[in-house]
Amino acid sequence: MGRGHRYPVVVAGPLTDSSSPTAEILAIGSELLTPFRVDTNSLFLTSRLNDHGLELLGKAVVGDRPQALVDALRQAVGRADVVVTTGGLGPTDDDLTRDALAAVAGVPFREEAAVLAAIADRFARRKMPMPAINRRQALVPEGATVLDNPNGTAPGLWLAVGRSVIVALPGPPRELKPMWDTHVAPRLLARFGQQHLRRRTLKIAGRGESHVDEIAAPIYGPLRAASPAIDTSILASPGQVELHLSAKGHDGDALDRALEQAVAALADAIGLPVFSVDGRELEEVVGDLLRARGGTVAVAESCTGGLVLGRLTNVSGSSAWVTGGVVAYDNAVKVRDLGVPESLLAAHGAVSEPVASAMAVGVRTRLQTSVGVGITGIAGPTGGSEAKPVGTVVIAVDGPDGRHVVRTVRFPGDRVMVRQMSVQTALDLLRRACAEGCT
Amino acid sequence: MGRGHRYPVVVAGPLTDSSSPTAEILAIGSELLTPFRVDTNSLFLTSRLNDHGLELLGKAVVGDRPQALVDALRQAVGRADVVVTTGGLGPTDDDLTRDALAAVAGVPFREEAAVLAAIADRFARRKMPMPAINRRQALVPEGATVLDNPNGTAPGLWLAVGRSVIVALPGPPRELKPMWDTHVAPRLLARFGQQHLRRRTLKIAGRGESHVDEIAAPIYGPLRAASPAIDTSILASPGQVELHLSAKGHDGDALDRALEQAVAALADAIGLPVFSVDGRELEEVVGDLLRARGGTVAVAESCTGGLVLGRLTNVSGSSAWVTGGVVAYDNAVKVRDLGVPESLLAAHGAVSEPVASAMAVGVRTRLQTSVGVGITGIAGPTGGSEAKPVGTVVIAVDGPDGRHVVRTVRFPGDRVMVRQMSVQTALDLLRRACAEGCT
Repeated sequence: MGRGHRYPVVVAGPLTDSSSPTAEILAIGSELLTPFRVDTNSLFLTSRLNDHGLELLGKAVVGDRPQALVDALRQAVGRADVVVTTGGLGPTDDDLTRDALAAVAGVPFREEAAVLAAIADRFARRKMPMPAINRRQALVPEGATVLDNPNGTAPGLWLAVGRSVIVALPGPPRELKPMWDTHVAPRLLARFGQQHLRRRTLKIAGRGESHVDEIAAPIYGPLRAASPAIDTSILASPGQVELHLSAKGHDGDALDRALEQAVAALADAIGLPVFSVDGRELEEVVGDLLRARGGTVAVAESCTGGLVLGRLTNVSGSSAWVTGGVVAYDNAVKVRDLGVPESLLAAHGAVSEPVASAMAVGVRTRLQTSVGVGITGIAGPTGGSEAKPVGTVVIAVDGPDGRHVVRTVRFPGDRVMVRQMSVQTALDLLRRACAEGCT
Repeated sequence: MGRGHRYPVVVAGPLTDSSSPTAEILAIGSELLTPFRVDTNSLFLTSRLNDHGLELLGKAVVGDRPQALVDALRQAVGRADVVVTTGGLGPTDDDLTRDALAAVAGVPFREEAAVLAAIADRFARRKMPMPAINRRQALVPEGATVLDNPNGTAPGLWLAVGRSVIVALPGPPRELKPMWDTHVAPRLLARFGQQHLRRRTLKIAGRGESHVDEIAAPIYGPLRAASPAIDTSILASPGQVELHLSAKGHDGDALDRALEQAVAALADAIGLPVFSVDGRELEEVVGDLLRARGGTVAVAESCTGGLVLGRLTNVSGSSAWVTGGVVAYDNAVKVRDLGVPESLLAAHGAVSEPVASAMAVGVRTRLQTSVGVGITGIAGPTGGSEAKPVGTVVIAVDGPDGRHVVRTVRFPGDRVMVRQMSVQTALDLLRRACAEGCT
């Protein structure tokens, strides 16, 4: 399995070269400088910027302080072709983005009648009086284009400054995302043409990072030297390794073809551990396999306490193939509700292959599904022994026609990590069982 | 309930004033500029910097490009008293932090024999040859203090530049965190004395943000004008509202006393919806209430598919008070394994108060616990009707002595949001039942 809470190792060099247009992201708000919040909009924005061949030079978070904001914005405009800001467009004194834009562009404000009317209308439809403070949101720096926001009062702004453009969007994701697709994407397309940056990801379970790297490394070289060149990187998270491929150029179809070939070569070399080449997560792959065969699954969980079922039922439409399960945290539940013989518990202990197998058989029999999964283990921090240290987990998958696998694994790390890797491993064993025919 | 995927609203003004020492964080690595990874070390670092009264001016992510890194580092050193970098200390060509430090400080490298010996020893203990490339990690900018890294090959660096200091740490959290506590914290204490920034958080469930704000706002004013002044902010996430209080000064005890009084005044005014004033999450509060009374809980989940049990069993030691549960995704499981009468399902539908109640009673009876919880609902995106639209969720809690509550709620948002708010609401109803005596 992966090496745990490691940072991703970038195998390839950086993507950036001087020929590509560039972007920076500036998240604005003092709350993002507390220990409690992390800016996640930048992941969405990065992906969308990449769609236009724009490469991210950097991203930053600044607080609600006028001078710091103006400085950061001015520097970003000096470096990047596109600067995207998020937040700071609200009606209060703390909302400084409009002012910073006007200062950096060196332009005055005008009050935009249409914007004011739209804000007033929004309040009217909710039968609420419009607070005087919201009038500020209709102030627009001279020369800026207003980007309509159907899901909030704060409109966005598009403002050219020198050879760069600033795109100012509100912070809430449910406002920002539709505004991007409606207003920003078409304008970037018009400005930067058809330059593309395309990405593909191979997701891999049941193999460690170094093992995957060993197989993939000989394939990387020719990919990087090819035309179009394909950049590669390897990223590890608990129980999962990902190979990320990317390519840039003007011919989107050629990029797609080159990436498909590269994905096929890597998938072929790595084999069964590759569970997805199209972005699907492990639980979606399991669901698709089951649905295709008319199969159903039930899960009996001890140390993972419901997390495997939680992952499976994350998938929309999972009621077609998840029947349910039993969380048997207490041994009495294992006996009463899963039919695990007390003699097995006494002879082998709750964390043992016979008990995991009996849990899988029990939940499959009782819930009348085609596949049953049983998981028992010691997540820690207490409960370990010399023979069965913290991190020992046993997973069984029981299918039709006597198909049955059981595996004992030992995971490193703390309680959260052990549980996460247990869930991942159980889903992967389930996937492999389903791939071999589970109904 | 909260307004969903909103950004936090900062009610108070920014914390920063010119008298406090300041810090910036620079996360280094091109992988952090892809759409796949977000820097989370900065949350830990912010919290630790705040412990020394250091306020965060900003944070940024830069890729593995030499000039961009030197520029970012130079600017940060010009603004902040402490600049913390993470990442880029590995042995490969992409690891540029050491070089950037030397460039910004204008000093040459020396090879540190002790560091080289430690790296060689680390490989020797694992019976692996030391790759020649790792020798780079023993290069230290002149004047820098080496910070030992017991969990990895990359040592950290502490380097004074002008009136600022740069603290360079490796990226992996399990290396960075212990290094902070062992090496960085004592040095910051020596440098900045006993300036403190203390924080407290009230966590609230079952009340919306605006409702909480209405109650809290009249209390804020005097707190901000008091000495020591207390800054306040309100943050909302699905199913939870948090009030964050903070105060700065040299007398840590006085700060603690003032914050305790403020917390007490707010908790008193808001009442039962406040579930924690000491950092505990909802599932920990439930666990503590159950443990104190010798109670146990079992959960029957439909639309949440195991996530309530997953949250409860996140708590270390939860096996003392979580017996287990049944995930009854399929109606047949509700009938067979929870004893829900088929007539109830036929008469009222699976998403109804009688069925939720029967699930709670059924799981409590079958698993012989003091409390049972039943949850059924429509998480979407499909399955809704006019009478029961997507987002309709029914939650029941069954306790001893005929105690029973059942509540029908309608949540906004997508599948993930509906499930998240369902879990939160179920845990809160369970908490309230336990607080009223559940055994």
